[in-house]
Amino acid sequence: MRATIMYSAGDVRVENVPDPTLQQPTDALVRIVRACVCGSDLHPYHDMPATPGGTPMGHEFVGVVEEVGGDVATLKKGDFVIAPFAWSDGTCEFCREGLQTSCRHGGFWAGNGIGGAQAEAIRVPFADGTLVKAPVSEDSELLPSLLTLSDVLGTGYHAAVKGRVNERTSVTVIGDGAVGLMAVLSAKRLGAERIILMGRHKSRTDLGIEFGATDIVAERGDEGIAKVRELTSGDGTHVVLEAVGHMPAYEQAIGVVRPGGVISRVGVPQYEVAPVGFGSLFGPNVTLTGGPAPVRAYIEELMPDVLDGKIQPGKVFDRTVNLDEVPDAYRAMDTREALKVLVRP
Amino acid sequence: MRATIMYSAGDVRVENVPDPTLQQPTDALVRIVRACVCGSDLHPYHDMPATPGGTPMGHEFVGVVEEVGGDVATLKKGDFVIAPFAWSDGTCEFCREGLQTSCRHGGFWAGNGIGGAQAEAIRVPFADGTLVKAPVSEDSELLPSLLTLSDVLGTGYHAAVKGRVNERTSVTVIGDGAVGLMAVLSAKRLGAERIILMGRHKSRTDLGIEFGATDIVAERGDEGIAKVRELTSGDGTHVVLEAVGHMPAYEQAIGVVRPGGVISRVGVPQYEVAPVGFGSLFGPNVTLTGGPAPVRAYIEELMPDVLDGKIQPGKVFDRTVNLDEVPDAYRAMDTREALKVLVRP
Repeated sequence: MRATIMYSAGDVRVENVPDPTLQQPTDALVRIVRACVCGSDLHPYHDMPATPGGTPMGHEFVGVVEEVGGDVATLKKGDFVIAPFAWSDGTCEFCREGLQTSCRHGGFWAGNGIGGAQAEAIRVPFADGTLVKAPVSEDSELLPSLLTLSDVLGTGYHAAVKGRVNERTSVTVIGDGAVGLMAVLSAKRLGAERIILMGRHKSRTDLGIEFGATDIVAERGDEGIAKVRELTSGDGTHVVLEAVGHMPAYEQAIGVVRPGGVISRVGVPQYEVAPVGFGSLFGPNVTLTGGPAPVRAYIEELMPDVLDGKIQPGKVFDRTVNLDEVPDAYRAMDTREALKVLVRP
Repeated sequence: MRATIMYSAGDVRVENVPDPTLQQPTDALVRIVRACVCGSDLHPYHDMPATPGGTPMGHEFVGVVEEVGGDVATLKKGDFVIAPFAWSDGTCEFCREGLQTSCRHGGFWAGNGIGGAQAEAIRVPFADGTLVKAPVSEDSELLPSLLTLSDVLGTGYHAAVKGRVNERTSVTVIGDGAVGLMAVLSAKRLGAERIILMGRHKSRTDLGIEFGATDIVAERGDEGIAKVRELTSGDGTHVVLEAVGHMPAYEQAIGVVRPGGVISRVGVPQYEVAPVGFGSLFGPNVTLTGGPAPVRAYIEELMPDVLDGKIQPGKVFDRTVNLDEVPDAYRAMDTREALKVLVRP
């Protein structure tokens, strides 16, 4: 089959690789109907060292079950399924608690012998625990929105849930990428009435307004902080959803969070140490939370809103490519020509 | 009057200073009946640069109101009062939300023209907002326990509240100082059934057991982490209450917190940057919270338990001195001869 492999920063190729096969009785094989390129795929696209064997890419997909192992109980050939960006057994205590990203036997796509999702097909470990059936056919117009349940919608929602957004909290969202926009939509869904979106790409912030942002702050750094404080009587917002992952975004979060507030991070941190002392988090009793979203925990909760058309997160896709065009999708997202690219294998 | 002044690291003196006087109509003058030395007083005792004018010391006290300004409505001469370690107006939105340490007009004792509590008397700004009346006389046996409401009990309780301790959470407390022991007592009060206390001073950990600790881990560093993990099926505890403030305690907290858990800090951080990235907080979805406790928010909640004798936090005091002996109290706490020293001016 055809699959996307990254060999080093900037070097993405679509190649012929062996077809995946069932390896465990708990596996399923899924033919991928839609996949996409993630903002987090751009991190290795920027800095991956040369890797002779290459690394399969992609961790978001919806598709059709082609074959299941003998122990798979809840799925059968022909089921349309959504996959979260981490696979998980569904039975350990972390899974039962809704923290599937810490599953005792789980892991991430595109590693440890599991392929990537920017491909024609994929082997899914712990299929019963990992996949969620969706009552749609593969020509449904809802596929882009359902695909966001794989990662970006659940990730934005995780930020808002961990930040304890509700109707009494004001919110700043840092970042107008797909996750930031999903964080806006999620904050709105949880009742926030004031949602300040920090971003400087008009087409994206316009979509942010459509998703529920009430204010746009295009300035960055100290200027951006001053602007948010000006909009909030000098105090900042109760919750800051940080959807970037770079240090300037962290510093911005510290600058705009209200005393006693919460910074909830879902942008994968590209730093290990950061200010947390008296002058940043401790003095004003600011809480720092977030992490890789256990999106599996949110798919069932959010899917009805997608099926009903109440939310249309699929609007974050502004370009569609076939598999062979995936390298150009990376380029387009990297240069910000495209917000998020849908892949039809 | 006599008051305690620190001039540089290790140089604590008790001297004659001008008597405090009312300066604002919202002030009260309080004669101090009991004060004490705080673990946090030892930070300047270790590293305060030479300061020619010196700095008044002490931020914990109970006492009797001697005089009130014309705008003070709820207090009168003769009232017995408890003072939180920060003064606050009691009316701004942060005060109303219970975050008095971020009061718009508040501040801390022993700075900005406000004296310290290791003295005979003190001027209290915003007396209505700051002080809490206690229905006791100045010869009550409950004074030591009531005095802990000034700081250490409220601080330990804040750690547990921010850590969201309840009957379903396992807890590790790092530090067997007064705040650590109060964190144990607070976790117990909030229903925790498993409370692991990390500390290596037997007389203190014995008191920790009396307050509710179920396990004592005397080891530190990697050995201590391994021990806590061994006690918790390898996972660590849901909540870690960090009551020290030094980097090794932070690292220990990262080491013993369960995925999805909370590290709640109340030890004043003696560092500004710390690990928060994928390998520490982010990957396992660990929340970092805490800060200076708004103890004013907890005094009314906790005082009934003290008055009823349900909790006896005053047991943390293991030595009593008069005002002239305060310098020796610092020395005794610094050398760990004493856990916490009560001062009778």
